[in-house]
Formats: sequence, structure tokens, C-alpha cells
Amino acid sequence: MAVYTDVAPAELEAFLSGYDIGTLTSFHGIAEGVENSNFLVQTTRGSYILTLYEKRVNRDDLPFFIGLMEHLAARGLSCPQPVAQRSGAVLSEIAGRPAAMVTFLPGVSVRRPTAEHCAELGRGLAQLHLAGADFAMRRANNLSVAGWRPLFVAADGQADDVAPGLADAIAAELATLEANWPQGLPAGVIHADLFPDNAFFLDEKLSGIIDFYFACTDFLAYDVAVCLNAWCFEPDGSYNVTKGRALLSGYEAVRPLSGAEKAALPRLARGAALRFLLTRLVDWLNVPEGALVRPKDPLEYLKKLRFHQAVDSAQDYGLAA
Amino acid sequence: MAVYTDVAPAELEAFLSGYDIGTLTSFHGIAEGVENSNFLVQTTRGSYILTLYEKRVNRDDLPFFIGLMEHLAARGLSCPQPVAQRSGAVLSEIAGRPAAMVTFLPGVSVRRPTAEHCAELGRGLAQLHLAGADFAMRRANNLSVAGWRPLFVAADGQADDVAPGLADAIAAELATLEANWPQGLPAGVIHADLFPDNAFFLDEKLSGIIDFYFACTDFLAYDVAVCLNAWCFEPDGSYNVTKGRALLSGYEAVRPLSGAEKAALPRLARGAALRFLLTRLVDWLNVPEGALVRPKDPLEYLKKLRFHQAVDSAQDYGLAA
Repeated sequence: MAVYTDVAPAELEAFLSGYDIGTLTSFHGIAEGVENSNFLVQTTRGSYILTLYEKRVNRDDLPFFIGLMEHLAARGLSCPQPVAQRSGAVLSEIAGRPAAMVTFLPGVSVRRPTAEHCAELGRGLAQLHLAGADFAMRRANNLSVAGWRPLFVAADGQADDVAPGLADAIAAELATLEANWPQGLPAGVIHADLFPDNAFFLDEKLSGIIDFYFACTDFLAYDVAVCLNAWCFEPDGSYNVTKGRALLSGYEAVRPLSGAEKAALPRLARGAALRFLLTRLVDWLNVPEGALVRPKDPLEYLKKLRFHQAVDSAQDYGLAA
Repeated sequence: MAVYTDVAPAELEAFLSGYDIGTLTSFHGIAEGVENSNFLVQTTRGSYILTLYEKRVNRDDLPFFIGLMEHLAARGLSCPQPVAQRSGAVLSEIAGRPAAMVTFLPGVSVRRPTAEHCAELGRGLAQLHLAGADFAMRRANNLSVAGWRPLFVAADGQADDVAPGLADAIAAELATLEANWPQGLPAGVIHADLFPDNAFFLDEKLSGIIDFYFACTDFLAYDVAVCLNAWCFEPDGSYNVTKGRALLSGYEAVRPLSGAEKAALPRLARGAALRFLLTRLVDWLNVPEGALVRPKDPLEYLKKLRFHQAVDSAQDYGLAA
């Protein structure tokens, strides 16, 4: 939760004069978003989110993220829709930061998703993949298999300080996945970070997907694997196959998985678990003094990885045979 | 800026079922309020602020604060209006904290008030004083003259670490004010912390006053003195007599000051400056590790105090002779 950059009301009013969205009636920093500063802006016309991109976001990636939201929204996906300035530009600057204004999405995220939420999420994820199919821009997934060893190196031999044996466990898994990462699966736009806090629900229906700042071009089934990790485990670390079945059935009702994708699912799920284990480990070891954000527990993902390592086939995730 | 306590969406939905305000459509922690955690709650009926009272607020004071907002709102003052539960209670509990739901006020605070803003603020302050005249509850101002020496003691001889000579300057002023604090002035409900971030404007008109968590029973003119300190100095520390005149004229258009109040104004302004100097000093010396909030500069109020010490009469603040 964070507002890293302060925006003065007068500065915001000057900024808003570049948009045709009415006059300012309310303005509050919101305690969400780890990477960026977010403000809820209300005008005589409606509600918007103003995002200031902080230094963890590469400015060169912004046209991809913003173009993607425009593309998906134009195809009917419920996601934040970038608002163009009078000049036509969607990317702007305020308080010395690149910034964009997007539409405000109603809805509430869930902490403990039910199987029904998982089914909704699966459908929404498949819709995102279909809507993204003709998006022309590409962005490599720098947090896929080629990015994991640099993260492990960044942990700098301190993994065992977090849990004895963790370094060996990561090294072994990394070697396995590097040697056996799936190839040639259907690829396209993936969200890559579709955790429950990035999905909104209203009346138990998925009402919106937010936070496209890890989106990239990669195997579509890898996105499914991320969601199995993020949505289908219980707080005690056990896998809930009912939720998994709901998520996969929801997905397949919109976009059936190919045989190759199904076969690759266990390995992709291991990779997704390793990805979050590694990024959380690095964050855990690098908490800046006076940090606003408490890092998430990396060991949650070691447990999930152990589960995936024991999986025989995609049926173990609840996939219809 | 702060959200100290995490509230799970499911917990909030259960909490909302105690209110007749529709169903939840949106829920965001907002980065405002140093003492409490605040959430913007939107329902099918409207927008509300949910405040969780953290430990710096004395629970015994909550009935006063909430009763005051109800009282002022009922008399037409634009301030947050507490929302009663179906049971009739306005004070509730969520996430282990006392909590209350109030109406959301549109408006935007200003960083650099103009003379027009000051005139609006002066009128609003006088309206608050008149509306509070028949409020039956009382709460002593524990940050008035009797509370300053304990704060100075709490600074524990470290004042000179902030600025050489600061301890002597405070000791001398404290002795002067303790011996010569005004007595018998008209008293009633005061806001006691009506800084620009606690006032909202729409189209240059005062649209609301928020944050009543320092409100108490004290000299009405002391509240005026707080506002002169908070609204009428420039960033370079100089007093802007045009703004002061606007604030005082606005106030007197609604509630004329008595001769005794006018005569006491310079001393009250010194007291108000000392009060913020002392609380900021203590906060400055006691920044907790990992603090979310950067303390405000105490020396801003030493400058203001120096100005007030040189003032001859209320005319120096811009008061009509």
C-alpha cells in the first residue's frame, strides 16, 4: 500500500485541464499498488484513477501497458480504460513522474476466493487471452525462466537465512526447469500477476481485472498456472482441487486448452511457484529502512512448489480428463 | 498518510450488514489521517468514510467527537455526518478497533490558501462556533496551556538537538504564557486543528470541514488564533496580513469578536504557535522505526511564534480597528 509521490491539489487541477473530464470534486491518495502511486480522482463527470509510475516501472514499458488496457477495454474486457488528454495522448506527466488517468472500476476484491470466484476468474482470464490475441505490441516476460537465475543470484547466498536448505531447493528446481521448460505452446498477452487483489467482484460476478503492470507476451497456459497458484491454495498450504476444477472449467468454457498445454501445466505451475518464491525472497532480503510495504512470505511459495513437484498430470489440478 | 489496520472485504461486508446503506460496490484504503485508518466505502446508496480509531485516540473521547459531528451536521454545518447502524448505535467495532461510518464529503483541500479561501474559512469557523453553542457535551483541551509543560518535559532536554537555543526559547515563552494566559473569554466547542488539509473547497467556496478528533471545549478565539497560524503565513515564514484580514473579516461577519477576545488575540496566537511547536517537536524526536509518516518541521512554528511575540495588537493581524 503506498502513495510514494505527493501531488498538490493545484498541480492536479492544472493537470486535469489537459483532459475533457469535467472539474475536480474530490481527490484522495489510495493505499494500494506496491509499484506505483495511485489517487482516486472524482470530477463532475465521474471517477478515475490517476497512477504515477514510480521508478520500479520501466518507462519504456508504459506504451505497452497503456496500449494493452486500451486494446482490451475496446474489446469489451472490464479493465481500467486509459483516458486520453485533449491532445490525444494517454501518457502524461505530473509531479515529475510519468502518469496516466484510467477509468475507475467498481468492485471489491476477495481475500478467500470461493470455487464460484475461481470459475468466474477462469472465464475472465480466458476472455483476456482471447481479447489480447490481436494486440500488436510485444513485451518479453522478464520474470520467466531466463529471469529466475539472476533473481537467485540477487538473493546472494542468503536464501538459507530465510529457511535452512532453501538455497539447495531453489538451485535444484531451477536446474530442472531451465533444462525442461516447455516450448512452442500457444502464446500471446498474459496478465502474469492475476492475484485475488487484482480482480474485482460485484454480486459474486467478476466485475473487473486491474493492474496490468506485469503483463507481457508469454505462454497463455503460464497465466493459468499463475492463477492456480494464486487462487486455489488454502491458507494452510493445501491445494483445493474443487477450486482448481472450477478455475480450469471456467477457463476451458471460453478457451479450451490444447493437449500440449494440459501436458505442460504441472511444469508451468512449478515455474510460476518458483517465480513468486524468488521475487518474494529478493524482496524479503531487501526491505529498505522505513519501508511502507511489508514483504510477503516467500515460503508460502516453497510449499506450493512442493505440491507441484508431486503432481503427476494436469488431472491433479482438477482438469477434466 | 496511513492505513494502520487491514480490513478484509468479507469482514467489511459483514460489518455493513449492520447498516441500512445498501450493498458494497467499492472499498479503498485512503492515505490520509495521521491518527486513524480511513477507508472510502462506496455502496449502492452512496459514498462513506469508514474510520477505525487507532490507539492515539482515547476511546472515552469518541462519544464526544461523534456526538459533535452529529450535532453540527444537524445544524447545517457541512461536516461528516455519522451514520447510525440499524440498532441506532453510531459507534461500532471492526478488526478489533472502534469504528464509525460517516458520510463522504466532496471537495478538495488547498495547499496555498488565497485570501478568498481565508475569508471562506473564517466564515465557516464562526458558523462552527455558533452551531456548537448548544452542544451539551464537554471535553477539556488537553493541548492548551496546562498541557504544554508536560510536552516540553517529554522533549526531554533534546530540543537543542533540533535547533541550538530552542530549549531556552520554549522555556521562556512557556513561563510567560503560563503566567499570563487569558481567562474568562467566551468558550464553547472549538475544532482546534483546522488546518488547510481539514477544509474542503469546491469552486473556491468552503464545502466542508473534517477531522474533529482534536475538537474540545475552549476559548472560541483560540480557534481563531490556531487558524491565523495555519492559514495566514507564507512558506517563507512571513505573515500575510491580507489573508489575516480576510480570515478575521469573514469570521466577524458571522460572529463578531468581543473587545476582550480582540485584546487577547496576540497572546492566544503565541499559545497556538507554541502548541504546534511542542507537539511537532515531540513527534520529531520520537519517529518510530519504519514510520509511515514523516514528521512536520517544528521550527516552522518557532518562526511563527517569533512573529507573534513582536505583535502589538490584534490590528497587526489585520483586524478592523
